[in-house]
Amino acid sequence: VGEEARDLGERGLIERLLGRLAPDPAVIVGPGDDAAAVPTGPVTLATTDLLVEGVHFEIGLSSPADVGWKALAASLSDVAAMGGVPRHALVGLGAPPPTPAATLEALYDGLDECGRAHGVAVVGGDTVRADRLIVAVAVLGEPGPAGVLRRAGGRPGDAVCVTGALGAAAAGLALLRAAADDPRAAALLETHPGLAAAHRRPRPRVREGPAAAAAGAVAMIDLSDGLGTDLGRVAEASGVGARLRAEALPLAPGVAEAAAWAGVDPVRFALGGGEDYELAVVAPPDRVGRLIGALAPTPLVVVGSLVEGRGVVLERPGGDVEPVGELGHDHFREDDA
Amino acid sequence: VGEEARDLGERGLIERLLGRLAPDPAVIVGPGDDAAAVPTGPVTLATTDLLVEGVHFEIGLSSPADVGWKALAASLSDVAAMGGVPRHALVGLGAPPPTPAATLEALYDGLDECGRAHGVAVVGGDTVRADRLIVAVAVLGEPGPAGVLRRAGGRPGDAVCVTGALGAAAAGLALLRAAADDPRAAALLETHPGLAAAHRRPRPRVREGPAAAAAGAVAMIDLSDGLGTDLGRVAEASGVGARLRAEALPLAPGVAEAAAWAGVDPVRFALGGGEDYELAVVAPPDRVGRLIGALAPTPLVVVGSLVEGRGVVLERPGGDVEPVGELGHDHFREDDA
Repeated sequence: VGEEARDLGERGLIERLLGRLAPDPAVIVGPGDDAAAVPTGPVTLATTDLLVEGVHFEIGLSSPADVGWKALAASLSDVAAMGGVPRHALVGLGAPPPTPAATLEALYDGLDECGRAHGVAVVGGDTVRADRLIVAVAVLGEPGPAGVLRRAGGRPGDAVCVTGALGAAAAGLALLRAAADDPRAAALLETHPGLAAAHRRPRPRVREGPAAAAAGAVAMIDLSDGLGTDLGRVAEASGVGARLRAEALPLAPGVAEAAAWAGVDPVRFALGGGEDYELAVVAPPDRVGRLIGALAPTPLVVVGSLVEGRGVVLERPGGDVEPVGELGHDHFREDDA
Repeated sequence: VGEEARDLGERGLIERLLGRLAPDPAVIVGPGDDAAAVPTGPVTLATTDLLVEGVHFEIGLSSPADVGWKALAASLSDVAAMGGVPRHALVGLGAPPPTPAATLEALYDGLDECGRAHGVAVVGGDTVRADRLIVAVAVLGEPGPAGVLRRAGGRPGDAVCVTGALGAAAAGLALLRAAADDPRAAALLETHPGLAAAHRRPRPRVREGPAAAAAGAVAMIDLSDGLGTDLGRVAEASGVGARLRAEALPLAPGVAEAAAWAGVDPVRFALGGGEDYELAVVAPPDRVGRLIGALAPTPLVVVGSLVEGRGVVLERPGGDVEPVGELGHDHFREDDA
């Protein structure tokens, strides 16, 4: 039984947590003053994500370090989806006073590990009492060489592409929840370790975002709520509709097996699962070859196209078409994960 | 009975909330994309605050608009305490799905009101489900004309000054908590409306921070946790001690009466209360006149000095000296407000 947050007090806890962070010599004022001071260019990208225990993560399914990693990864992904390069992060941490200090230190280790893996320094934060773990991350970045890429640049006829593969995070979460009581789920997690890893330690496409913007992408979004919902946002912002082809969706290894185990259509994991943190990249068809080259070795595949009209539809192999509708995550409807 | 957050869904709720914000034409990409894009200079100040219902505010004592105001004010105060000028804010909002949409709209009204009052635009955010209200604010700003002012610049012999007056927020909170059952408390709140206002709508010293830096302040901090704790941070960062004179502490109107009502030493409200969001300004004594002129009409008074050694002590009128010790707020010790 080690120390708890309340034993250290706010100051002692902050000292411990800051000790987990690698210092960045380019930072002008780092953690520990009223505000951080960082070097910036003429344009700064800024985004924030709020993660709440029991809503966005479950202790038991993820380690504290995983939680720290994922909290930062979500915001890095947002900056990448603007074609930007994330640089600095602020972290607001809420925790119950009896939380073991080691838990919070591990969470900071995960933040720091994710930051170092992506060239991002944690430069400040806030540490408060709460009744459950809360991690609020804000990330600052700079535009990539091609400037700022918005959601609104798509036109009918543009190709819709996705990086990597889909469905792993959602399948991983479903299996992790079941694994204690379900040997089949546990076996699938062992056979496909990428599924749990995708849920616990998503890899934001920090290199691919600016590279796609430079290679001619006209609109982009990261897949935090599922391709169905997130592509719907691009389509709406662009004033168009979108058509996805079910057989083109790249399923991550093990997702088909997890869907069979769960008795659901694998498309549900691929479109509705959320938290894959892949990028949906929109570009005129004649630029797709260049985009594929620019993003290699990360796969980029065409999964559909933007069309006149409104809404996102899914075309099944037989030619049937159905609205994607409410397959995605909605953080305010309680039946969500 | 109006709509609840869950009736609107995440997208509908976000649309409603963004409708409460005044647009800022200088912002390159405002709310609604993956990240905001804002114009910045070569150095950006960045800070974050996390407010949790039941810890940092109590619905019933503060209106939702008050909560929004205060959440932003806390971060603006941090930027001002660096001698900086706050410009842009990100807001992470957590709320239970049954929360009335009108409550969250009012919270955003308070955010927007505070932002407009201080030249700050809300440029992005995140909206998630939680079991209680959570407001995570991150603020970006730029250094003032005198650059970045840190906590660490104090030297023995420097004067310690404070803006405005102390203790109003803590006295206001104590009275608000008691007022329903205690007619004396209710009467004091009526006689001194500044006490409740100080708790609900603190006025960050956004003008005074950069002005103090330009007029020769060598160290500064904002009083979020009480002068005792916060001056201790300046002293520690500067490698010195501090000596405060009890009779020099400027008590806000009504604080002495509130202390008499509570049966406590008014110094307790002034040093330990927290949330006054005044500035503690440290400067060589020969610059105090210039500082007073630069901050006018906001009062600035000398309350003590930095000394050789460590720790903060309080000198009583008779000459007795006591350590300020644990009078301040500690967010991880549960006997705090």
